[in-house]
Amino acid sequence: PRPQPKGSRPPIRHFQLNNVTTTGDPIGNEERVLILTPMVKFYQEYWDNLLKLSYPHELIELGFILPKDRNGAIALKKLDAAVKKVQSGPKKNRFKGVTIMRQDFDSTVSQVEKERHALKAQTERRAAMARARNSLLFTTIGTETAWVLWLDADMVETPHSLIQDLASHNRPVIVPNCFQRYKENGVDAIRPYDYNSWAESDIALDMAKKMGPDDVIYEGYTDMPTYRPLMAMIYKENPGTDIHEEMELDGVGGTALLVKADVHRDGAMFPPFSFYHLIETEGFAKMAKRLQYKLYGLPNYLVYHYNE
Amino acid sequence: PRPQPKGSRPPIRHFQLNNVTTTGDPIGNEERVLILTPMVKFYQEYWDNLLKLSYPHELIELGFILPKDRNGAIALKKLDAAVKKVQSGPKKNRFKGVTIMRQDFDSTVSQVEKERHALKAQTERRAAMARARNSLLFTTIGTETAWVLWLDADMVETPHSLIQDLASHNRPVIVPNCFQRYKENGVDAIRPYDYNSWAESDIALDMAKKMGPDDVIYEGYTDMPTYRPLMAMIYKENPGTDIHEEMELDGVGGTALLVKADVHRDGAMFPPFSFYHLIETEGFAKMAKRLQYKLYGLPNYLVYHYNE
Ligand SMILES: Nc1nc2c(ncn2[C@@H]2O[C@H](COP(=O)(O)OP(=O)(O)O)[C@@H](O)[C@H]2O)c(=O)[nH]1
Ligand SMILES: Nc1nc2c(ncn2[C@@H]2O[C@H](COP(=O)(O)OP(=O)(O)O)[C@@H](O)[C@H]2O)c(=O)[nH]1
Ligand SMILES: [Mn+2]
Ligand SMILES: [Mn+2]
Repeated sequence: PRPQPKGSRPPIRHFQLNNVTTTGDPIGNEERVLILTPMVKFYQEYWDNLLKLSYPHELIELGFILPKDRNGAIALKKLDAAVKKVQSGPKKNRFKGVTIMRQDFDSTVSQVEKERHALKAQTERRAAMARARNSLLFTTIGTETAWVLWLDADMVETPHSLIQDLASHNRPVIVPNCFQRYKENGVDAIRPYDYNSWAESDIALDMAKKMGPDDVIYEGYTDMPTYRPLMAMIYKENPGTDIHEEMELDGVGGTALLVKADVHRDGAMFPPFSFYHLIETEGFAKMAKRLQYKLYGLPNYLVYHYNE
Repeated sequence: PRPQPKGSRPPIRHFQLNNVTTTGDPIGNEERVLILTPMVKFYQEYWDNLLKLSYPHELIELGFILPKDRNGAIALKKLDAAVKKVQSGPKKNRFKGVTIMRQDFDSTVSQVEKERHALKAQTERRAAMARARNSLLFTTIGTETAWVLWLDADMVETPHSLIQDLASHNRPVIVPNCFQRYKENGVDAIRPYDYNSWAESDIALDMAKKMGPDDVIYEGYTDMPTYRPLMAMIYKENPGTDIHEEMELDGVGGTALLVKADVHRDGAMFPPFSFYHLIETEGFAKMAKRLQYKLYGLPNYLVYHYNE
């Protein structure tokens, strides 16, 4: 961008899309990362992990969207306090900018764990999530955004070099493997959490053909077996050690997900409706593919979801 | 939004989607309008018409996207000069803000009139247009945008009250009727220009069923008759006088098009790929419909396209 006049809303902003690079060396090229988090609940562990990300904070902008209900209000209070603290603390910890949005639509679906996952509640829930993600994305992505890191509010543990590690692959869309820590007979163990990162199967494609136009296929339900290779199960059954091993994907989850901003700018959003019988982050994957982008997963690169 | 710290990039921005209203009385409610224009060529008539819009300029932001080729460079020079002039002129003429973007992808398709409209070149051309619109939209829509007015760079004449007139209908998406002035035997006449605003027909739906997944239906080609009621033809055959008469639409053109920002925020963009056998602004219409929004046209409200 050319030099700009002073003031909080410059009257003329010039901007060359070419000048925003997205490369395998994002720090060297001072590439801006926008971290986007839809948030129902504020987890201190999420925040602590976020603060420890070693990507230069002056290159990171944060964006949050919270529901308009009581849960949103409670989370907002905690988030506000946490943001104020870091933004008025030591310079090197401060982020480039923070946007906090409250939704104008209800998340009508109950958040109780079991209900939340019942198959029939899924479409409504995933559509509400998709709308929240789209509102957040459309409102915060700016002229200088190079990368968008989607990071759910209940992601409590990632390597500190998460952004650099994912970006080093220089892929349009890349997703680590989302697991969960738990205790098995008092012993620390891990298990797969997010089943939305998968490669397509012929069986699922056949199922789709027989469905009505608004029907959606969901992963992880025994009454709807797709036999898709799931990235989570691939690691579970055959854990590898090379964290940079890639696999090509056709569906992605959004718990942690790095996207080149141009993929979104081209139009890839989170469909809040059945798109090729997919919705939300999985629908996003299909949309990115329709735009000729390839998606990759890192089966051996683990990140962890909160265990409620 | 709450009071904000000074500086060109405030560290924390708070924002309630509820507080941005989109109503039938946008001036009374101080609603922000973002006018978005993809521009290959700068027309003085477009600019003069834009400056005459009677919606308060301090509530209007402008966004332009120009191709990276020589045409884009020529248009940019003229646009730049025009923008500088108005933004440093009398306060009441100044717009709230202006963003000018250059594309990072080529518009490979020739712009020669005849070639431009050849059926087989359409998909490539419309996909490039869709990508340009999406980049512009994603990059400029902000937290306070209430309405988005799409206005092509070759729209040379509209009523000065265009924004108020369209907004007064308080519809999610509304489109005036795009005509063209010409001389018939030396006499002033008008003729339909934009065929992309239409209501769906059973014949077109049947055609779609028989098509391959990537095939797209286009309006205005005799070898592909859809028998869709076209808003342009409705006025031509039966011109009415009530400029506020509405008709419900299933496809819309983008030469002049008013959209509530929330429709875009929910995810409605311009698909650069076949979406239900539709693309670009017509695909946008289908996407808005999938998001449960209704679209309307004003057959008797005319706006005029340049005649090349
Ligand atoms: N703004 C907003 N965020 C939500 C909503 N529902 C869930 N979230 C957040 O979106 C992310 C994913 O939701 P979650 O319920 O954890 O999904 P799951 O882990 O896949 O079962 C989390 O960060 C939630 O805090 C919603 O309705 N509005
Ligand atoms: N940025 C950009 N603008 C374009 C491109 N192609 C066309 N436009 C602009 O998009 C609008 C519609 O294109 P136009 O060729 O006039 O379409 P038509 O009138 O429907 O035949 C006009 O404002 C053009 O100046 C492109 O590749 N990039
Ligand atoms: Mn979760
Ligand atoms: Mn035109």
